[in-house]
Amino acid sequence: MVGLPARGKTYIAKKLTRYLNWIGINTRVFNVGEYRRRATLQYRTHDFFRADNKEAMEIREKCARDALEDVCEWLDGGGEVAVFDATNTTRSRRQLIYEFLTVNHSYKTFFVESVCTDARIIEANIKEVKVTSPDYTGVNKDDAVRDFKIRIQHYAEFYEPLDEEHDKDYSFIRIYNQGEKFLVNRVQGHVQSRVVYYLMNIHVLPRTIYVVRHGESDMNRMGRIGGDGDLSKRGDQFASALAKYVADEKLENLRVWTSLLKRTIQTTVGIDAPKEHWKALNEIDAGVCEGMTYAEIQSKFPEEFALRDADKYHYRYPGGESYQDLVARLEPVIMELERQENVMVVCHQAVARCLLAYFADKDHVELPYLNVPLHTVVKLTPVAYGCLVEYISLHVECVDTFRPRPQVAKRKRSSKPGRRALMVDPHTV
Amino acid sequence: MVGLPARGKTYIAKKLTRYLNWIGINTRVFNVGEYRRRATLQYRTHDFFRADNKEAMEIREKCARDALEDVCEWLDGGGEVAVFDATNTTRSRRQLIYEFLTVNHSYKTFFVESVCTDARIIEANIKEVKVTSPDYTGVNKDDAVRDFKIRIQHYAEFYEPLDEEHDKDYSFIRIYNQGEKFLVNRVQGHVQSRVVYYLMNIHVLPRTIYVVRHGESDMNRMGRIGGDGDLSKRGDQFASALAKYVADEKLENLRVWTSLLKRTIQTTVGIDAPKEHWKALNEIDAGVCEGMTYAEIQSKFPEEFALRDADKYHYRYPGGESYQDLVARLEPVIMELERQENVMVVCHQAVARCLLAYFADKDHVELPYLNVPLHTVVKLTPVAYGCLVEYISLHVECVDTFRPRPQVAKRKRSSKPGRRALMVDPHTV
Ligand SMILES: Nc1ncnc2c1ncn2[C@@H]1O[C@H](COP(=O)(O)OP(=O)(O)OP(=O)(O)O)[C@@H](O)[C@H]1O
Ligand SMILES: Nc1ncnc2c1ncn2[C@@H]1O[C@H](COP(=O)(O)OP(=O)(O)OP(=O)(O)O)[C@@H](O)[C@H]1O
Ligand SMILES: [Mg+2]
Ligand SMILES: [Mg+2]
Repeated sequence: MVGLPARGKTYIAKKLTRYLNWIGINTRVFNVGEYRRRATLQYRTHDFFRADNKEAMEIREKCARDALEDVCEWLDGGGEVAVFDATNTTRSRRQLIYEFLTVNHSYKTFFVESVCTDARIIEANIKEVKVTSPDYTGVNKDDAVRDFKIRIQHYAEFYEPLDEEHDKDYSFIRIYNQGEKFLVNRVQGHVQSRVVYYLMNIHVLPRTIYVVRHGESDMNRMGRIGGDGDLSKRGDQFASALAKYVADEKLENLRVWTSLLKRTIQTTVGIDAPKEHWKALNEIDAGVCEGMTYAEIQSKFPEEFALRDADKYHYRYPGGESYQDLVARLEPVIMELERQENVMVVCHQAVARCLLAYFADKDHVELPYLNVPLHTVVKLTPVAYGCLVEYISLHVECVDTFRPRPQVAKRKRSSKPGRRALMVDPHTV
Repeated sequence: MVGLPARGKTYIAKKLTRYLNWIGINTRVFNVGEYRRRATLQYRTHDFFRADNKEAMEIREKCARDALEDVCEWLDGGGEVAVFDATNTTRSRRQLIYEFLTVNHSYKTFFVESVCTDARIIEANIKEVKVTSPDYTGVNKDDAVRDFKIRIQHYAEFYEPLDEEHDKDYSFIRIYNQGEKFLVNRVQGHVQSRVVYYLMNIHVLPRTIYVVRHGESDMNRMGRIGGDGDLSKRGDQFASALAKYVADEKLENLRVWTSLLKRTIQTTVGIDAPKEHWKALNEIDAGVCEGMTYAEIQSKFPEEFALRDADKYHYRYPGGESYQDLVARLEPVIMELERQENVMVVCHQAVARCLLAYFADKDHVELPYLNVPLHTVVKLTPVAYGCLVEYISLHVECVDTFRPRPQVAKRKRSSKPGRRALMVDPHTV
């Protein structure tokens, strides 16, 4: 990352890392600010960031080097992408990174610079994430804002942005004012190309995404998986409840996406909003097990059943799909979700798990066991560096289709129905 | 399009149009040069393009306006994207376009500018496509090059490139020196985002792509579709012949891609090159018809069989896929093929049809009936604005799996085996 403070570097670093991990590229953020806070007792004021504060400068240098060494160690150990989250605002610092990682260790370096000329964006960023940072514990809000602005000034004095001429041999992207404009130079390889595409599609406008499973179906009642059946009576009741819920939310320009299967389309009939139907949102293809109950699968294909339990994420149904396949199929859906504003996605259990794993940053082990109950709206709201996840039951009775991870003694289920909030990825910087 | 002559505008316009049509976005190129050649009897020399040639200027103005009106008419009639292929090198010309299409007709305008500062690229472009243009019929090559360079000069005098400041409200991409660098401004909507991603992934390096079906399988011999069976004896012979063919081609850094199915993997065992296996390359999922013969499908599902014949591209097997679904699943494969250099794709009949339709610019009607015989290498070489397609039989006997379009009297098949060349999209500008 490259950029003055409060330019969204940490935001971009975390979001990009979440995306890359989700699509299966092993990625980790190395935040130099965290090294600094571990190295020195207490941040007092912006003075720490003055260029003539020799002692502090040494600490900062050391932190950057330590982080860089950790980056290298992690890549050597099989990590695929390291996101080096620091200001890196001088040419000498970037050259150090490039020499260390690319010249000495043959890793590709790709710089992501965030440039912001709009004072309102910076002010908003400071208020949103900086005043609540551990650097300002116990400091009043206005003082924190004031101090942070001076901190930016200390960096601005020596800021050398990436330059088309001077840096023409580097691979980089410059992002201007939250995605208004991009300069992209010497993209190398598949991963950089994906990173660029992703960074060009995300936005920071406030909006809400809803992930909902279809209403209860006749197949659900019989405990059978797959197929293309109709909603049960209670499923229809949920469809009505959902339409009312959406009307009450009063969201502007809401779009509703469903799969191509009848049960998701039937679930949205009452909703007053434009609808789109995606084959990519269809339920996981259970291949030869389509239409069976778990008991039937277990007795007919005991070996398959055991294999699935052993590694549910990678297990592929014979003639069907794995969760991993599903993530690949859902990638264009996530990309388009990033581009959109308010969207309600009406889908299926396995699909909902994949989508939620993306938003709530769950890994491959947890993903296939996420509990997404029927007749419950999952509401996702962007906050700070992550996403607020709320489960809202619409109180329409239904079967429970959740099959917990085997050999886990306690089954975790919320005892109270209704609203339950969980903060994902809270302020960690 | 925006750019001086010989900057690859027509190349980009045609290639982008082929891609957009293939992914299902109805797109057409409007080439002002063609209007000009239709409007005026004969191009003589560069004098025609002098700014002080009043009569010629009027003709050129009129051609641009006519083309613009045709663009509008076509969009009004359901066209989704019109690529306006002309130099558009002045601000006033671009403003005219923007006013006409966006202000007056509410269509989005996206400018694609190709900038080239490398004289060698321009020289090569002139030699590759300009000296063979209809403008220079009967003119000797050196004279044509000389004339064309002066023609560029006439444009260069009044060239106003897209400018970060002046044009900051336009949506545009500037491509520098064949993709070394990109400036991307105010991308609006899904289609523009896809266009940008595509333009950032294509390259013009010479390379060869091979599309091959797996060797004959036992299922092929039984006339059964789908499944995951082994190669027949003759299929194994083809695998050996293919390995020998690849060795004889002596290509640098060849990569081999297969599907996840045994028959494609078995087909590549003898090839000495790195291999990657894509689920996206698996054969079309025939759903309930997997493993059947066409006769069985016809007798068991007569209605489905008839529906498929009526609209083979859009027809989706119950519980399976359509050709249209297959194109969506293959889109990331095409994108990655564009990024790569020499690649051999070993796949399946329906998959090969979709890939070839992309390279050979075949529409949805032709696509599902393209004849891609077993034991034949399809060799694709980029030439001028298109792609040379060669069918090379490796002379290993096999069954014929081709089922021609029903009610078409004559079945088109090359009578001679061996090499057959067909030039796609030859010099039309
Ligand atoms: N491209 C962007 N440009 C400017 N702000 C952005 C961008 N992307 C996200 N933001 C906003 O940035 C804020 C978060 O700032 P963040 O903490 O990431 O800044 P930072 O650059 O890491 O600062 P520091 O150098 O102090 O660590 C969020 O409010 C988010 O909305
Ligand atoms: N981004 C690019 N920059 C420069 N050249 C390119 C680019 N992309 C493709 N080319 C090359 O451009 C050549 C084709 O030139 P083309 O006819 O498309 O130029 P043009 O800009 O349409 O010229 P004119 O204004 O005379 O119509 C091909 O040889 C192709 O390899
Ligand atoms: Mg930060
Ligand atoms: Mg042209």
